[in-house]
Formats: sequence, structure tokens, C-alpha cells
Amino acid sequence: MNNFSIALHGGAGTILREQMTPELEGSYLEGLRLALESGYTILKNGGSSLDAVEMAVASLEDNILFNAGRGSVFNSNGLHEMDAAIMDGKTLGAGAVAGVKNIANPVKLAKLIMKNSEHVMLCGQGALDFAISQQLPLENEEYFYSQLRYDQWQAVCNTDNFVLDHNDPNKNSMQDKKFGTVGAVAMDQSGNLAAATSTGGMTNKKYGRIGDSPVIGCGTYANNNTCAISCTGHGEPFIKAVAAYDVSCLMEYKGMSLEQAMNEVVNVKLINIQGEGGMIGVDRHGNSAMIFNSAGMYRASNNRDNKMEIGIYK
Amino acid sequence: MNNFSIALHGGAGTILREQMTPELEGSYLEGLRLALESGYTILKNGGSSLDAVEMAVASLEDNILFNAGRGSVFNSNGLHEMDAAIMDGKTLGAGAVAGVKNIANPVKLAKLIMKNSEHVMLCGQGALDFAISQQLPLENEEYFYSQLRYDQWQAVCNTDNFVLDHNDPNKNSMQDKKFGTVGAVAMDQSGNLAAATSTGGMTNKKYGRIGDSPVIGCGTYANNNTCAISCTGHGEPFIKAVAAYDVSCLMEYKGMSLEQAMNEVVNVKLINIQGEGGMIGVDRHGNSAMIFNSAGMYRASNNRDNKMEIGIYK
Repeated sequence: MNNFSIALHGGAGTILREQMTPELEGSYLEGLRLALESGYTILKNGGSSLDAVEMAVASLEDNILFNAGRGSVFNSNGLHEMDAAIMDGKTLGAGAVAGVKNIANPVKLAKLIMKNSEHVMLCGQGALDFAISQQLPLENEEYFYSQLRYDQWQAVCNTDNFVLDHNDPNKNSMQDKKFGTVGAVAMDQSGNLAAATSTGGMTNKKYGRIGDSPVIGCGTYANNNTCAISCTGHGEPFIKAVAAYDVSCLMEYKGMSLEQAMNEVVNVKLINIQGEGGMIGVDRHGNSAMIFNSAGMYRASNNRDNKMEIGIYK
Repeated sequence: MNNFSIALHGGAGTILREQMTPELEGSYLEGLRLALESGYTILKNGGSSLDAVEMAVASLEDNILFNAGRGSVFNSNGLHEMDAAIMDGKTLGAGAVAGVKNIANPVKLAKLIMKNSEHVMLCGQGALDFAISQQLPLENEEYFYSQLRYDQWQAVCNTDNFVLDHNDPNKNSMQDKKFGTVGAVAMDQSGNLAAATSTGGMTNKKYGRIGDSPVIGCGTYANNNTCAISCTGHGEPFIKAVAAYDVSCLMEYKGMSLEQAMNEVVNVKLINIQGEGGMIGVDRHGNSAMIFNSAGMYRASNNRDNKMEIGIYK
């Protein structure tokens, strides 16, 4: 048995086996495995859950397949505007960034906001200025470019539609939803919990839109007394449901287990308000859960039973 | 007895009788009374709680004494950057705006985002563009100007300090804290709850900083099953505590009354993380509560007992 635990996701939605090629599926699984390993190694070596979730999320941000950091979708202005958050379950310290450009790893900026600013949440140019003051390296627009994302955007950029992650542009976006977000949660050997989430948002989204990912309590939450949670899905219902903190409250106030609480939020409360997506969680005992109400969720975990699980479909 | 209820606040902090002139105190009380009346009249005439909290908050935004809308503080760039949110307890519909300039009534923009956009939260230029598309009238920088706010900013604008609302610039800002935010909560004759919050933030704040006011679950929350809450205080701890939604969870999952739950959050949980400030709430039975752990909170209410209460100090 491990005295640590990690779980991560790379987005949820209408991810169907029949729409996937073996090569693409292999690339996704390899990306999930690499991210899991980067966090797992930190935890195994006695590192903090905060560092583990940061590095696991950064690995997914660096992977062009996932809609976060490099490979983020295009917004309605043809730019990449990213959101991220991180939370430390030991101190309830939190950092979040919304609508930031030119940052390779928004999760690292979120951690710097948590550690080195007096604020929790910064957005836009103010967030970029803070990144520069922290010597975080910047990247130009080309770094974030991918042909796939560009083609997706071109298909809808003269319309009012927005598309949820890497849909087939020939399909109705409301029937073929993929929510591009990445996230990680972990418990380290000291029993400290942490959560992090990062996203490029929705293709052709109106710029300035903030989803649930950087909203503490909604897309991201961690508390040593209960759990660490990172969400992926249609951001607006996840905000209205205050989804991540609701799991924590159901555990703390109603005595539910992590899995019971996540099931209640994902499969009852979110469904009641058309909230499609899922979430990953770990509790303070090192249990993990990965629960979604959509067709699929890119996910991986290695919990206290030292059982590695990597999956895409239901 | 009334079958409706309303409460509002105009900020909390180190508000001491000995620092107030009789004239200024009278102006504050009159501003609170006018705002209360504007919401009360709507409720009495059968209007919705959503309209009542919007109009009560707009009244406080229009009043140059309160740090929201007109009379907002200056940020580190010498501009006014405002946040607001509104939530409908019947549908869990929510709208929020962060870091917006030139909008006389950010609460009205938040309501338009809730009603007419597919998003919950918009920030910066994207929010302004949406406001223009909705024909919301804009105001130039002078509209937001007040000599008091300008003098406050001048006292700290070449420093890294930020000041919480209208502190005495000669005092240490950490010893004399005032949290400039306005908010309202209401239950209407149909039993529907609503909450709204609006703020100009902190004097000399780094631009791009988002406090708790526009964060659904943190500064603002409404749910017909439990309560409507609007917070005022040091935004960062209120975000970490997911303060507004925590009240709702303590009521729903632990069976606490509105007042018990607000006491637990304001006087126990927030104090544990140095979270100074307060909140107002109404529940689905029309009870109201106004609770703060600071020296004072500008506040007013008229609940189901038809008892009007207007106060500043403890």
C-alpha cells in the first residue's frame, strides 16, 4: 500500500470509442500515463501534494492533445485565453488566474499567485504583469498553436457558436460535447491534500468568459479535513452548483464518503441542472474516485492501494 | 407580518463612532434607508426578489458614499475596476462581472449576463463588449470620481500598499480596515430568494485582482431551498472559505438555522483564517440576519416581522 494518492483528468464529454483512431487513443493514454508518473514520482519521493498536482497539470498543459496551456483552443478573437487554479488543503491557500495569455503553464502562475501575492485571483493583463514580475517565461502565440484547434476555430469563427473543446466541427456542438480541461488531485505522505485545474476554455468563446476551473469552490477545491477535487465539464452549471466545495460539505456535514459525495454531486445535483462532465477526487485517507456523467473522461489514478488506472470511456 | 423580506449592506470593517461626524453618519443612514426602500417597495408591490436586490444594490452603487459603481475606489492605475454578481435562488441562474470599467451599475450588467448570455462570469473588455451589445449606457471616468477616493489613492499610489475602502490614509491600513462592498438579499411574496453584491474593490489594488464579490458561492449565493447571502469583507479569506455557499450547506446538510449557520461561518470559520468582515442573509421563511466580526457594518433590513433595522456599529 502507498501512503499517498494521485488522480488526474484530461477533460470529459462525448468521447466515443468509435470516433477514435488507435493511434490517437494511444497518444492520449500515453499523455495521461506521463502526467500520472510525473506526479506519482514526486509523491513517492516524499514531495508535497502541491508540487505533485502542479507538475501533473503542467505535463498535461505541455501536451498539445489536451485543451490547456499548449494546445489550448482559439477564442472568438483567434487568441488563446487560459484559466487555472490551485489550492492547498493544509492552509486553504489558493491561487487562480483567469483569461491570461502567453503563459505556457497557467498552473504555475496560479501557484505563484498563491505563494507570492496578497490575492487569490488575478485576471487578464494584471495577471500577465504579475507573471512578468515573477520572471515566469512567456511564450508567443505560435507556441499555443495547433492545426487541429485552428481548424476547429475556422469552422465556427464567423458564427455566434462556441464549441466545447475538440468537437467534430461537422457535428452539432450541443450533441457532441467535449469539455477540455485538465486537473489533478493528490494526497502526499504527510497527509496533505491539494488540487489543481487548468483549461483553454471553449473554442470561439467570447473573450472574457470565465468558466468554473479557476473559481475556488466550483472547479477546484482542497481541504485536509475532507477532500481535494478538480472538475471538468460545462463550466456554468458547475459554478451554479459550487460543485467542488459541495463534495467537501457532503463529506464534512453529512458524513458521506468521497465516492458517495461525488456521486451525489455529479449524478444527481449536476444532472438536475444539465451539468454534463465529471470530477476527480482524493480524500484524507488516500482513497480516490473519478466520476463522470458524460460518455467519457480522460483519467488516470494511482491511489493508496497502488493500483494504477488509466481510462477514457465509461 | 410581511410575506417578504429584505436585507442589505454597504460594507464592513473598522467603522467607529468616534471617527464619524454626525453629518456623515446621517448621510450613510439616509443612503441605507433609500436603498432599503427601493427594494422594499418592489417586494411590497409583488415584484420579484431578483428585481428588489438589483434595485437596492443599484441605489447603493449610485450613492457616492459607498464603494461600488459611482464612488468606487481607484486601482493602482488610477482607474475604477468594478465587480458584481447576482443569483436567482429559484433557478440557480447566476451572472457575474469582474474587472469592468465605465459601467454605472455593474449589478445590472451581472443580471444581463445571467439573463441574456450563455455564460455566468465575464471579465474585463469582454464584459464591456457584452454590456455595449446589451445597450447598457456607459459612463466616462469622471462619473466615478470622488475627491475622497482620489485623496485616498494619492496617499498610497506610489507605494505597494493597497487600502481597504475608505481608510484614513494616515493610519496603518491593516489596523483600520474598511471593506467597501454593497449587497442585498431578499425573499419575495412567491417565496423566491435572490442575492446581489457589487464592489469597487480595494484602493490601489493591482489591476486584475478579483475579490469574493463576483465569485458565486463565495461572496454571493442564493438557493430557494436554503438562503440568499451577500458578503462583505477581506475577499481572499471569503474565497478560501467559500463563505456564502457554506452557510447554505450548514443549513441544508446540518439543519442549522440561517442565524446559526451565519454565526458559524462569520464568527468561527472566517476568524480562524483571519477573514474579517460580515454578511447578510435571508432564508426561505423570510427570516433575516446581519452578522459581522468587524467593528461595524453598514446595514439595513426589513424582514417578515415588518421590523425595520438600520445600523452601522456593533
